[in-house]
Amino acid sequence: MTSTPLDFRSDTVTRPDRRMRAAMAEAEVDDNVIGTDPTIAQLEERAAATLGMPAALWTPSGTMANLIALSVHLQRGDRFLATRGAHVLTNELGSAAWLAGGMPDILEHDAGPGRPTPDLLRASIGNPGPYFTLRTTLLCLENTHNAAGGAVTPPEEHAQLVAVAKEAGLNVHLDGARIWHASVALGVPPAALTVGVDSVSACFSKGLGAPVGSVVAGSVEFVEQARRMRQMLGGGVRQGGILAAACLVALENVGELAGTHEHARRLAAGLAEHGWGVATPDTNIVLAEVPDLGAALEWLGSLGIQALPMAGKVRFVLHRDLEPTAVEDALQRIKAGAR
Amino acid sequence: MTSTPLDFRSDTVTRPDRRMRAAMAEAEVDDNVIGTDPTIAQLEERAAATLGMPAALWTPSGTMANLIALSVHLQRGDRFLATRGAHVLTNELGSAAWLAGGMPDILEHDAGPGRPTPDLLRASIGNPGPYFTLRTTLLCLENTHNAAGGAVTPPEEHAQLVAVAKEAGLNVHLDGARIWHASVALGVPPAALTVGVDSVSACFSKGLGAPVGSVVAGSVEFVEQARRMRQMLGGGVRQGGILAAACLVALENVGELAGTHEHARRLAAGLAEHGWGVATPDTNIVLAEVPDLGAALEWLGSLGIQALPMAGKVRFVLHRDLEPTAVEDALQRIKAGAR
Amino acid sequence: MTSTPLDFRSDTVTRPDRRMRAAMAEAEVDDNVIGTDPTIAQLEERAAATLGMPAALWTPSGTMANLIALSVHLQRGDRFLATRGAHVLTNELGSAAWLAGGMPDILEHDAGPGRPTPDLLRASIGNPGPYFTLRTTLLCLENTHNAAGGAVTPPEEHAQLVAVAKEAGLNVHLDGARIWHASVALGVPPAALTVGVDSVSACFSKGLGAPVGSVVAGSVEFVEQARRMRQMLGGGVRQGGILAAACLVALENVGELAGTHEHARRLAAGLAEHGWGVATPDTNIVLAEVPDLGAALEWLGSLGIQALPMAGKVRFVLHRDLEPTAVEDALQRIKAGAR
Amino acid sequence: MTSTPLDFRSDTVTRPDRRMRAAMAEAEVDDNVIGTDPTIAQLEERAAATLGMPAALWTPSGTMANLIALSVHLQRGDRFLATRGAHVLTNELGSAAWLAGGMPDILEHDAGPGRPTPDLLRASIGNPGPYFTLRTTLLCLENTHNAAGGAVTPPEEHAQLVAVAKEAGLNVHLDGARIWHASVALGVPPAALTVGVDSVSACFSKGLGAPVGSVVAGSVEFVEQARRMRQMLGGGVRQGGILAAACLVALENVGELAGTHEHARRLAAGLAEHGWGVATPDTNIVLAEVPDLGAALEWLGSLGIQALPMAGKVRFVLHRDLEPTAVEDALQRIKAGAR
Repeated sequence: MTSTPLDFRSDTVTRPDRRMRAAMAEAEVDDNVIGTDPTIAQLEERAAATLGMPAALWTPSGTMANLIALSVHLQRGDRFLATRGAHVLTNELGSAAWLAGGMPDILEHDAGPGRPTPDLLRASIGNPGPYFTLRTTLLCLENTHNAAGGAVTPPEEHAQLVAVAKEAGLNVHLDGARIWHASVALGVPPAALTVGVDSVSACFSKGLGAPVGSVVAGSVEFVEQARRMRQMLGGGVRQGGILAAACLVALENVGELAGTHEHARRLAAGLAEHGWGVATPDTNIVLAEVPDLGAALEWLGSLGIQALPMAGKVRFVLHRDLEPTAVEDALQRIKAGAR
Repeated sequence: MTSTPLDFRSDTVTRPDRRMRAAMAEAEVDDNVIGTDPTIAQLEERAAATLGMPAALWTPSGTMANLIALSVHLQRGDRFLATRGAHVLTNELGSAAWLAGGMPDILEHDAGPGRPTPDLLRASIGNPGPYFTLRTTLLCLENTHNAAGGAVTPPEEHAQLVAVAKEAGLNVHLDGARIWHASVALGVPPAALTVGVDSVSACFSKGLGAPVGSVVAGSVEFVEQARRMRQMLGGGVRQGGILAAACLVALENVGELAGTHEHARRLAAGLAEHGWGVATPDTNIVLAEVPDLGAALEWLGSLGIQALPMAGKVRFVLHRDLEPTAVEDALQRIKAGAR
Repeated sequence: MTSTPLDFRSDTVTRPDRRMRAAMAEAEVDDNVIGTDPTIAQLEERAAATLGMPAALWTPSGTMANLIALSVHLQRGDRFLATRGAHVLTNELGSAAWLAGGMPDILEHDAGPGRPTPDLLRASIGNPGPYFTLRTTLLCLENTHNAAGGAVTPPEEHAQLVAVAKEAGLNVHLDGARIWHASVALGVPPAALTVGVDSVSACFSKGLGAPVGSVVAGSVEFVEQARRMRQMLGGGVRQGGILAAACLVALENVGELAGTHEHARRLAAGLAEHGWGVATPDTNIVLAEVPDLGAALEWLGSLGIQALPMAGKVRFVLHRDLEPTAVEDALQRIKAGAR
Repeated sequence: MTSTPLDFRSDTVTRPDRRMRAAMAEAEVDDNVIGTDPTIAQLEERAAATLGMPAALWTPSGTMANLIALSVHLQRGDRFLATRGAHVLTNELGSAAWLAGGMPDILEHDAGPGRPTPDLLRASIGNPGPYFTLRTTLLCLENTHNAAGGAVTPPEEHAQLVAVAKEAGLNVHLDGARIWHASVALGVPPAALTVGVDSVSACFSKGLGAPVGSVVAGSVEFVEQARRMRQMLGGGVRQGGILAAACLVALENVGELAGTHEHARRLAAGLAEHGWGVATPDTNIVLAEVPDLGAALEWLGSLGIQALPMAGKVRFVLHRDLEPTAVEDALQRIKAGAR
C-alpha cells in the first residue's frame, strides 16, 4: 500500500504542536525535587481546581499516578474492587498487586459499559470478616472507561457508587486518565465527576496533545504522601516545568474534544454499515466486534489503517493528530478493501 | 440451650487422638533447619510418593504451602488465573499479590462447581501481548474446591485444563488442601489428580486429624527453592518431627473419609427437606442457600449448631471429631427449632 | 574417628525430653486460627507476663517473630538501625528489607560486644531530613547478641539506648531469642531487659529444649496487627497447643542455664590454653579466633567436634543435650589431636 | 541581605539554556511506550556507545535508573554491597530494599574516598553459606561518589574491584550519575570507567543542564527487562523525545566540566583558608567540615550562600548556572561575614 497510514492506535500518539512547543521553550523552571518548579506548581494548582480537589501532584505518567494513589491507599492484606478491564487491573503490569499491596476483585459492568450497579458493588463489598480475612478498603472507578470503549459514567451513577463505598468505609480512587472526554461528552465540569472521591488521576497526554505528564489529586495530606511515593518510584524530576508548560496548554485543548467525539460516532456508524458489531461511542473510542480479531487487524493493516486489539475487539481511537478526513478515508479504504 | 454444641465450622477443628499423640511423643527428631529431621524426611518422602511428585517440603500451614508455591512460580508483572472463590484469592490475605507478586484474574466455574471449561481457560489466557502488558504464567486449580462446596474435579477434566495451560506455557499449581477427599470420592489415588502439575499443596490438618502441618510438592529444584522461601517466611522449624509424626498417622486416616462423605450427603438431604437450597455434596462440605444468611447463622447458633458463612451460604463441614449421631442430632434440632 | 560426635553447632539442636513429650501428649488443644487454643493462650499469657509486656503471640519460629515485628513497625521508606551481625540483618534472608520494607543501617559495637554507645546511636539517627529522604523509625537491639558471642547488654545500657531512640521518636524492637540467657547471666528477670521496648521476640527452642515455638510480645494493639501478619505469612496453625505445651515446660528449664554458662566458661578457658583467641563468654556461646577458619572447622570435625562458623570465627554453643563431660571430652580431643 | 543568592545546593538546579530549549522545541517525537520515539532512540544509542555498553534505556530520573537496575539484578534473599553513603543506600528511600528486594551491606572507603580496597571487598563477600543464608549477588559502585565529595575511582581500581566481584560470581552495577565528571577529571572516556560492569546509570540533569532525564545501560537482554520494569514503575512516557533532545545537547556540555572542577578547587582552597576542613576536590563537589553544621548552614544562608548538608558536612556543588565570579563572590562574603 502506498496510502498514508491512518493512526487509530491510541490518543497517546499525538505530538505537541507549535504552540505547545513554544510554551515549553519559554517555560520558567526550577528544581522540583529540592523545592518547587513554578510551572509545575502552576499546573498542579490549575489541575486541582479543575478536578475539584484540594491539591494535585504532577507525575510522568498516568500509570505512575494510579500506582501512587493505590500505594497510598492500600496496605498489605487489603482487597480493592475495580471494574472488569480497568487500567489498574490490566495495563499496569500488576503493580497494584505486587507494589501497592492490594488483592483485586472484579466488578462486572452490570449498570452499563464501564460501571457496576450500586447493588452489585454493595454485594461485592460484603461484610467485614474476622481478622484472618481480607479487608475491602478501596473502590477504583474509571471514567471514561477505556476497555468499555470510552464509556462515560454520569454524575448521578458516580455519586451512587461513591455513596455505597463510603457507607462501607472504603476509599475511592478515580482513574480519570480521560476525564476530560467524560466532561465534554456529559456537558459537566470535570469536578462534577470527582465528587466524593479520595483521589483522582488525570492525563494530559491522552487526547490533549501533551508529550508527557499526568496528575494525581487528593487532599493536602494525600498529596504529601504521594510526593514521597513519587520520589521512591523515581518519578521526581528536576526542571519538570518544561513538561508542565505543555500540560497547561493541553488543558486549553479540552474544548476541541467534542469534534473528536463526532468523528468517533461517524466512524462507528460506518463500521456498523460494514457489518461489524459497533455500539455508538460515548467519546473518542470505538470498539468493533469482528469475526476474527487477528485477521481483522491484519486486513486493516494492509489497508494502512492502524488499530490495536482491546478486550477481544478492534479498538479505534480518535484524536487531534488525525486529519479531518481520516474517518472518511478509513471508511472508504474499508469499503474498497471489502470488495 | 443446654445441648452439646455440634461443631460444623471446619474440619480444621479436629484434635489429635490418642494414637496420634502417642506417635508424637515417640517421634525421632533433629534440627530441621540446619540439617534434616528424620521424621520430617520420612513424611516428605511419603507425601511426595503419595502425591506423585519427585519431592515434597513440610510447612506449618496450607496457607504457607500455597504462598511458597506462588512465590516460587510468580515474578513481578505476572498474571495468574484462579477459580472464583479459590483459597489463594480469598483466604490468604492477598499474599499471592503483595508477597508472591502476581496479579490475579478469576475463572468462573462454567464446567461445574470448582472448575472452568478448557475453552474458558484458553480464552482467559489469551495471546501474549507486547512488553508493556501482563504475562500470564500460572494456573491455580483447587481440588476439592472449598468455596464450591467441597466439589471434586475428575481426573479427565483436570488433565484437559493442565493441557491447555501447558500448551500456553503456563505453570500449574494445585491447591490440594483436601486432595484426600477428592481421591476418596473419585476412587482414584491422589497422584491421579496431580498429573502434569508443577506443584501441589496438601494439608494433614483438614479432616485427617493432625494438629499442624502441610506439604508443598514439586520437582527437586522446585523444593530447593521452596525450602529457601520457607526460611524467609519464618516457616523453618527445628524439631518438627513431632508434628510430622502426627501427619504420618493422618495419612492412615484417609480411608475413613468415605464415611464422612456419607454423613455429608445425609445432612444435605435433611437440609433440603427443611427447605434450604442444597446440592448433593461431592465430599465433606455442605453449602446451604438460605433466605437470610445472618439470621440463619444466628438461629443455628441458638440451636447449638455451629457453622460458618461461605460464598453467601451457610457452610457445614463434616469431620472425624463429630459424633456418629451428630447429623441426625442436628437435623432433629432444626426440625424442632423450625416449629 | 569412632568417638561419639560432640554437637556444639547450636542450642537449636536440643530435643524435647520425656517430660516435655508427655506434656505435649496431654495438651489441651483447639483451633487457634478460628479461635484460641487454650494451651497457646496460656503460653501467651505466661510469656507476656515474664517478658513484662501487655500481650504476646505464639509464632512457629524466631525468624517469623522478628519478621512480624519489623513488618508491623516499618513502612516503605523507613530506615532502621541494627547492630553489626544482628540476626535481623544476616540470618533472615533479607526479609526485613524486601518483606517488611525497611532499609537497614548498621551500628558498630562500640560500647562492648553486642551494643553501641548512646552517642553512636544518637549520631546514627541524625536529624530528620526533607520529604525525599529516609525516615529513621526503628531501633533493633539483640540480647543476648549471637554474633557477638552471646554477649549480654546490661539493663542500664539497654535503658540508655531506649531513651535515645524514644527521644528521637523511634520504635524499639528487641530480638530476645536468647533473652533467658541474658536474664540468668545478669541475675535480673527478663522483664528488666525489655523496659521501654515496643516489641520483643523470644524463643523456646534455643537452649530450653522446646522443639518448635517462639513469641513476639508488645501492646495489645501490636499483637492484634501481629496476629494478622502471622496469618499472611502462613504462621497461623490449628492445634498449636501441642507445641505450646512444650514451650511452657521450656520456661521451667531457664534455671538450668547457669550451669550451661559455667560449661561455656570452662570451654573458653580450655580453648584459650590451646592458643586460640577466646574471650570469657557471657552466656552459652564461645567464639574462637583461629588462624584458618576452614582448616580449624575441618580439623575439629575430624576429632568429632561439631561447630559452625560465625562472624569469621569458630562458634561453639553449649546446651542441655550435651553430656556433662562434653566440654572436658572436647578439650581432651583437641589436646590429643594437637600433638 | 540584599545580595544575589549564590546557589551551591546541587548541580541538579541548572536550567536548560536557549540552545537546549531550541533543541527541545524542534525535537522529532513519537509514542515511546507503544513503539520507539526517534529522538529517544538516538539518545539511547549515543549513550550506550559513550558508556561502552551494548544498549541503553532512557528513564525520567537517576533514582529510577538505579532502581530499575537493582530490580533486574536482585532477587528476594539477595545481599548487595554498596559503599558507605552510596546514593542507592541513602537517597532512594529504601527502594533498593523494599522494591528491588535486596538486603544491603556497607563497604567502608578504605582505599580512598568513594571506594573500598579489593581485600575489603573480598572479605565482605565471604564464602557462600548454606541455603538458609543470604546470597551475595551484586556490587554497587558509584563514580563519582557524591557523599565522598565527588571523589573519582580511577580505572585501575575500578577494574580490580570488578575482578573481585566477578570472581565471586557477583553482578556489578555502577551508579554513574556523574560519570561525566569522573571521565573529565581522569582524562579518560566514560567507557573506560564501565569496564566489566553489568549495568550503569548516568544522568543528564546533574551538571550538564538537561531538565529531565537519565539512562540505564547494559546488555540487550538487560535493557529488555529494564524496559518492562520501567513500565511497571510508571516511567514509560509518550513523546519523551522532547526531553531526550535536551539530553543529547547535554552530552555536548561535558567538555566544560573541566572549568567547573577548577572553580571547585578554588572554592576549596578559599574555605581551607577560612579554617574549615576541606580536601582538594576531585570534581565539582566540595565538602567542608565545620564545628557546628546547623550553625554553619544558617550563617551561610544569612550571607546569601545556599548549600546543603551531606554526611555531616557542608556540601557545595559547582555547576554551569553559577556566574564565573560566584566562587570569588562567596569567598568574599565569607571573609566579610567572619569579621
